[in-house]
Amino acid sequence: MKMTPNVKSLINKLKITVPIVQAPMAGGATTAKLVAAVSNAGGLGSFGAGYLSPPKIREGIRAIRELTDKPFAVSLFVPSIFDREKNQDSIKKMNDKLNFYRKQLGIPEQSPSPAAQEEDFAEQVKVIIEEKVPVFSFTFGIPSPEIITKLKENNIVIMGTATTVAEAVALEKQQCDIVVAQGSEAGGHRASFLNHSRFSQIGTMALVPLIVDHVKVPVLASGGIADGRGLVAALALGAGGVQIGTRFLTCPESGFPEVYKQIVLKSTEESTAITNKYTGKEVRAITNSYITQMEEEFKDDDMPSYPVPHYMTQDIRQHAAKTNNPSFMSIWAGQAVSLNNTVSASQLIEDITKQADETLDTFQFKK
Amino acid sequence: MKMTPNVKSLINKLKITVPIVQAPMAGGATTAKLVAAVSNAGGLGSFGAGYLSPPKIREGIRAIRELTDKPFAVSLFVPSIFDREKNQDSIKKMNDKLNFYRKQLGIPEQSPSPAAQEEDFAEQVKVIIEEKVPVFSFTFGIPSPEIITKLKENNIVIMGTATTVAEAVALEKQQCDIVVAQGSEAGGHRASFLNHSRFSQIGTMALVPLIVDHVKVPVLASGGIADGRGLVAALALGAGGVQIGTRFLTCPESGFPEVYKQIVLKSTEESTAITNKYTGKEVRAITNSYITQMEEEFKDDDMPSYPVPHYMTQDIRQHAAKTNNPSFMSIWAGQAVSLNNTVSASQLIEDITKQADETLDTFQFKK
Repeated sequence: MKMTPNVKSLINKLKITVPIVQAPMAGGATTAKLVAAVSNAGGLGSFGAGYLSPPKIREGIRAIRELTDKPFAVSLFVPSIFDREKNQDSIKKMNDKLNFYRKQLGIPEQSPSPAAQEEDFAEQVKVIIEEKVPVFSFTFGIPSPEIITKLKENNIVIMGTATTVAEAVALEKQQCDIVVAQGSEAGGHRASFLNHSRFSQIGTMALVPLIVDHVKVPVLASGGIADGRGLVAALALGAGGVQIGTRFLTCPESGFPEVYKQIVLKSTEESTAITNKYTGKEVRAITNSYITQMEEEFKDDDMPSYPVPHYMTQDIRQHAAKTNNPSFMSIWAGQAVSLNNTVSASQLIEDITKQADETLDTFQFKK
Repeated sequence: MKMTPNVKSLINKLKITVPIVQAPMAGGATTAKLVAAVSNAGGLGSFGAGYLSPPKIREGIRAIRELTDKPFAVSLFVPSIFDREKNQDSIKKMNDKLNFYRKQLGIPEQSPSPAAQEEDFAEQVKVIIEEKVPVFSFTFGIPSPEIITKLKENNIVIMGTATTVAEAVALEKQQCDIVVAQGSEAGGHRASFLNHSRFSQIGTMALVPLIVDHVKVPVLASGGIADGRGLVAALALGAGGVQIGTRFLTCPESGFPEVYKQIVLKSTEESTAITNKYTGKEVRAITNSYITQMEEEFKDDDMPSYPVPHYMTQDIRQHAAKTNNPSFMSIWAGQAVSLNNTVSASQLIEDITKQADETLDTFQFKK
């Protein structure tokens, strides 16, 4: 496909041939098959490993390496410090509310404590360094200078995620090699770390050129991009490539549960909304009665901090998936979801680049 | 500049030479000078006349015609029916809250009745037809079939605004000639008419290709577009042109108050938020303590219907402008606001088209 100088910078840095990064989606969608298929097709597959233990991450990386010798990324969540005392009260409040739902669903009530502990970020990173993963990407913050230095020493490309210009500038200052500009259209978690309010819900069309104007490193556009038209639009805005998530969810290689795939394939641009009621952080998800009710009835001030609610709501979400009850499922998806189909990951990358070239060919007339 | 077949369709329909529409901004920014300058530069100027009486609209149209013989648009708000009884209670509640602010500001308290009546839409449209305005654009709904027929009989091009695919399809079905796809980045009122919730806040990057896929008429992209990069991006997504609002606010020809211009010129992508607390409809505005407090403290359920709050808050907003008090000013702006500068409207159109061509020229390399 036709490329710009910014594309050249990006693909040279990532050692890939097509400026498409499959977004890291934690929670099982990014199987070794999906990641490897994207990388083998010339893009960059990403393994969303944020919720996984160090041994599971190592296992995942090795499974990917069995399927490809091309570069790929592993992605983690940068942890944030939170006030455990303040949380005790809110954990109780939220658990009471969840027990109300559990009763409705006929599943066991729980006592007010998080069901699991957060994974140790330093230990997760250690695996990535030991396994010499080509690209490390992250959201929710910036790793410590010590971690950044160690990654650099091991020639690991560092890719941070920004939802505002200020975040992009902070990432570049801390030596990130590539900045992902995440527009408000994007499915899944908002990567915001300097500001978690609705003021940081900047659309991709506005966000990308502003970030490009303020950093020197290559920028990946993400949010609402799902085909070749979106790829050309992103490159026109100055991005060096795109990060696409939702569109890969329904590929046969994706580990997304079949019931979720069916719901995604029937969704439209009006199906999603941003909520913090599943994990404690803002996430764009397919709306349902859990989201609508919780947004109306449960105060933001009473929400425990991320990731506590992720673990607290796990039994309910798993029960919903098992019993095919969309009212309680947590399905992350972006606003371009209606462009999804079921082609393979390699076909998808071919379709997108072909459409990008066709799109560029339409610019022919001159006034 | 280089153009696509979709651009050709749009500019032929509008009889313009540059695919840039200056967005209709009600409230005084769209002076005859601004509208005429845009049209004289080959774009389409728009006169935001929604809040004006029929004689004032006629006066405005004639002033534009003294400055240009090129096509231009006049824009109105399609009225919606509302429950006056339900409103009485909410008008009282909101007036109590506003009196609290009035006391703070040292301005006279008001009794709980709207300060003015809504203009008669049918009478407003009559002027547009009598004056044979080239283009009629509108938001908040679709005019009645009778009005549409009359406009068509008078060869007036009809341009409706959509924030979802469903709205775009409804507009085309009712014989609109052009659909404006308004992304969530856009400043000012959300044009939504089938759904007023946060579920219809679709970003431009996702919305434009989806609407293009569902209607046959030319589509104008709006929201977050402020320069030549945005223009090329919009055309890549399949739009035939762009509608740009915020960027024109700070042109010397704009009637935007000088204090507002200074605030806009200092704003960033994090400065705006969507609120319904000024007019009763969702609007993207520069945030201030009025918006923050009202969003937190005053329930959506208690808001009187649009346009009642527009008139109820008028004295407070005017006092804020007069006393240079940004905490209560109502300043509509979009998320690309930080790209604003103070060049003239004709220079702005030249800058945008020049940058569009330069952007297209960057697509040179082939893998």
